[in-house]
Amino acid sequence: MNRVFNFSAGPSMLPVPVLEKAAAEMVCYGESGMSVMEMSHRSPDYEAIIQKAEADLRKLMNIPDNYKVLFMQGGASTQFACVPLNLIGRTGKADYIVSGQFSGKAFKEAQKLGYDVKCVATTKDDNFDHVPYVTRDMIRPDASYVHMCFNNTIYGTKFGYIPDTGDVPLVADMSSCILSEPVDVSKFGVIYAGAQKNMAPAGVTVVIVREDLLAYADPKMPTMLEWKTMAENDSMYNTPPCYTIYMLGLVVEWLLSIGGLEKMQELNRRKADLLYDYLDHQDYYLAPVKAGSRSMMNVTFVTGDPDLDKKFASEAAKAGMKNLKGHRSVGGMRASIYNAMPYEGVETLVAFMKKFAAENPKA
Amino acid sequence: MNRVFNFSAGPSMLPVPVLEKAAAEMVCYGESGMSVMEMSHRSPDYEAIIQKAEADLRKLMNIPDNYKVLFMQGGASTQFACVPLNLIGRTGKADYIVSGQFSGKAFKEAQKLGYDVKCVATTKDDNFDHVPYVTRDMIRPDASYVHMCFNNTIYGTKFGYIPDTGDVPLVADMSSCILSEPVDVSKFGVIYAGAQKNMAPAGVTVVIVREDLLAYADPKMPTMLEWKTMAENDSMYNTPPCYTIYMLGLVVEWLLSIGGLEKMQELNRRKADLLYDYLDHQDYYLAPVKAGSRSMMNVTFVTGDPDLDKKFASEAAKAGMKNLKGHRSVGGMRASIYNAMPYEGVETLVAFMKKFAAENPKA
Repeated sequence: MNRVFNFSAGPSMLPVPVLEKAAAEMVCYGESGMSVMEMSHRSPDYEAIIQKAEADLRKLMNIPDNYKVLFMQGGASTQFACVPLNLIGRTGKADYIVSGQFSGKAFKEAQKLGYDVKCVATTKDDNFDHVPYVTRDMIRPDASYVHMCFNNTIYGTKFGYIPDTGDVPLVADMSSCILSEPVDVSKFGVIYAGAQKNMAPAGVTVVIVREDLLAYADPKMPTMLEWKTMAENDSMYNTPPCYTIYMLGLVVEWLLSIGGLEKMQELNRRKADLLYDYLDHQDYYLAPVKAGSRSMMNVTFVTGDPDLDKKFASEAAKAGMKNLKGHRSVGGMRASIYNAMPYEGVETLVAFMKKFAAENPKA
Repeated sequence: MNRVFNFSAGPSMLPVPVLEKAAAEMVCYGESGMSVMEMSHRSPDYEAIIQKAEADLRKLMNIPDNYKVLFMQGGASTQFACVPLNLIGRTGKADYIVSGQFSGKAFKEAQKLGYDVKCVATTKDDNFDHVPYVTRDMIRPDASYVHMCFNNTIYGTKFGYIPDTGDVPLVADMSSCILSEPVDVSKFGVIYAGAQKNMAPAGVTVVIVREDLLAYADPKMPTMLEWKTMAENDSMYNTPPCYTIYMLGLVVEWLLSIGGLEKMQELNRRKADLLYDYLDHQDYYLAPVKAGSRSMMNVTFVTGDPDLDKKFASEAAKAGMKNLKGHRSVGGMRASIYNAMPYEGVETLVAFMKKFAAENPKA
C-alpha cells in the first residue's frame, strides 16, 4: 500500500490509525457479531457509539451544556436552508456576511426561500482576497441572526476574529476549519459544519445550537430540517447516517488521544507556517490572500501563468501529491492541509515547489 | 470473529463478501493511494465509482432511460417532504394510501407543509394487518400523484399488486423491499428508498424519477431537496455521501454477480416460505398478517403473551439471533430477512422457534 499526500479540499485525508481501526472492525465490531454498518440504530451497541461520539466531541470542543449537538444529513448546503427556516421566526429578518462562494450561496438560499435578508458586508469586489471587518453598527439590531462562513475553502481565507454582533446570534459555517484549533463556542448562537474535511467522511453534518434558539422554526418546514425535532430525538428522529457518525467518533477519539485542539492547533500552525514562510520568501509563486485573512487549512497560490499552474498540479500528482489544483471557479493551486495531513506532506510539497520553480523559469 | 444472524429491520445485514472487500480497500483503494472516504468527489477515481454504482443499479433494476437515478441524503423521511415539494405543482393536490406507520407519516408531512392532500384508502381500522385494495375510481383524476409505501416494515405487510392509478403518477416508498425482487419501474412515476435495508449502510436515499416529473418543484423550496437540481448535477450539487454510495455500488455488484433480482427473488422466496410454512402449520405462534399481504422481507408473529414474547427475543439473542423484537409500536416479534440474510439464518430461527414452543408451554 502506497499512500499519497492528498491535498483535497474535501473529502480529504483521514488519520491512518482511524482508517486502520475501521478496517479491522469492519466485519465484526467488538463482541457484537456484526459490522457497525449493520447495527440497528436503536440497539445498545449503536447507542453507545453515538453517545460516545457526542460526549467526546463535547469534551474536545468544550461545548457548554446549554448547546445541543445534532448529527444531520445533507451537508452545509442543506443548512443554508435550515438556518433561516429555523431562526428567522425570531424577528422576521436576517443579516449575512458574504466572504466567499459558500457564504454567498447561503445568502441566496435565504433569498430563494422568500425571506427578508440583507448582505451587510462583502469583499466580493476584491475577489474575496480578504474577509470583511464587521462591527456591531453594521448589523441590524433586530436581525434574527448574522450568518458567516468562518473559513473560505475556495479562496483560502479565514476570519482572524469573531465578529461582535451584540445581542444578535452569530451563526457560523465552520465546515473547513472546525476541530483545527480551539474555538469559544459560547460566542456563537449556532455552529455547523459538513464533516468531510476535519471530522469524518462525507455524509454527516454537525450542528451545535444554543438551546434558546430552538423555538423559532417555521411551522410549515420539512420535519427533517427542524433542529428542534432533531434535538428532541437525539438525532434519531429517523435512521441517522450511523457509520459516518461512528467514523466521526473515531476521529474525535484520535484528536483527544494526541492532546486535543490546543495540540492540533500547534501542529496545524507549524504546517501552515512552513508553507506561508516559503511563499513569503520567494517570487515565483503569488499567494493572493491578504495578511490577517490567511487560512490555516487552505493555502492558495498561483504562478501567474495558467499553463504552468496546470503543469504544476499534474507533475505534483505524479510525485505523489494529489488534488493541488485550485477550485474550478478560481484556478491556480490550493493546498488543503487539514488535521490529517502530516508535516511531512507539507515539507514534500515545499521541496517540490522549489524544484518546480527552478526547472520551469517564466518567460 | 463470530458473526450472528441479525434480524434487524434496518440498518440490517450486509453481504459478508461486500464487508470483506470494503475492509480490504479501506486504507488504500486500488492504485489511488487513498481511502474512498478521502477522495475528492470531483476526482476521476471517485467519478468512476459513482458512475458505476448508477450504471449497475440501472442494469440490475432494468431502469428505463427516461428515468433519472438520484443519490440523496436524509432517508425516506426527507422524501416525505420532497414528494409534495417536487410534485404538487402538477395540479395542486395529491392522494395518499395509508397502509402503515411510514405511509401515515408521509401523509402527515404533506399536510404539515400545507398542501391539499387526501387519504384515499387505509387499513388503519384493521391494525394494518393487510394492505388496502386500491382501484382507479378511488383516485382523484386531477391528483398530482398517488403516494404509497410498497412494503410496510413495521407490520410485515406488502402490496401483492401494483395499484392501477391511470394517468396519475404512482409514487412508491420501497425502502424495505427494493432489490428484493424484480419490479417494473415503468409502472411508477417515482420510486424512492432509504438504503439501509437492502442496498447499503444508512446515509443514502435512492430516488428513481421519471424525467417529465422534474418540472413541478415549488420555487420556494430548499435547493437541496429539489430532485431537478440533483438530476442536473448528477447527484453532486454538493458533496454526496461518497462512501455510502461506494458501499451501495459494492452491494449492487454483488447482486449482479449472484444472478440479479430474479435469482434474489428465488432465494428470498425460499427463506420466507420456510418461515411462513412453519407458522401456518403450528398453533403456538400467531402470524397476524392476512393472506395476500404478507411481506417477504419482514415476518411478524406473536405468542399472544407479552412476557413470552420478551423471553423469546432475549433467548434468541443469546442463541445468536439478534433483533427479533418487534417494533416498539406493535410489540411481538419481527424477523427481517433481507437479501443478505442467509437461508441458514431462517433455518436456525425456525429450529429455535420449535424448541422455544416446546419448552415454554402456555398457561
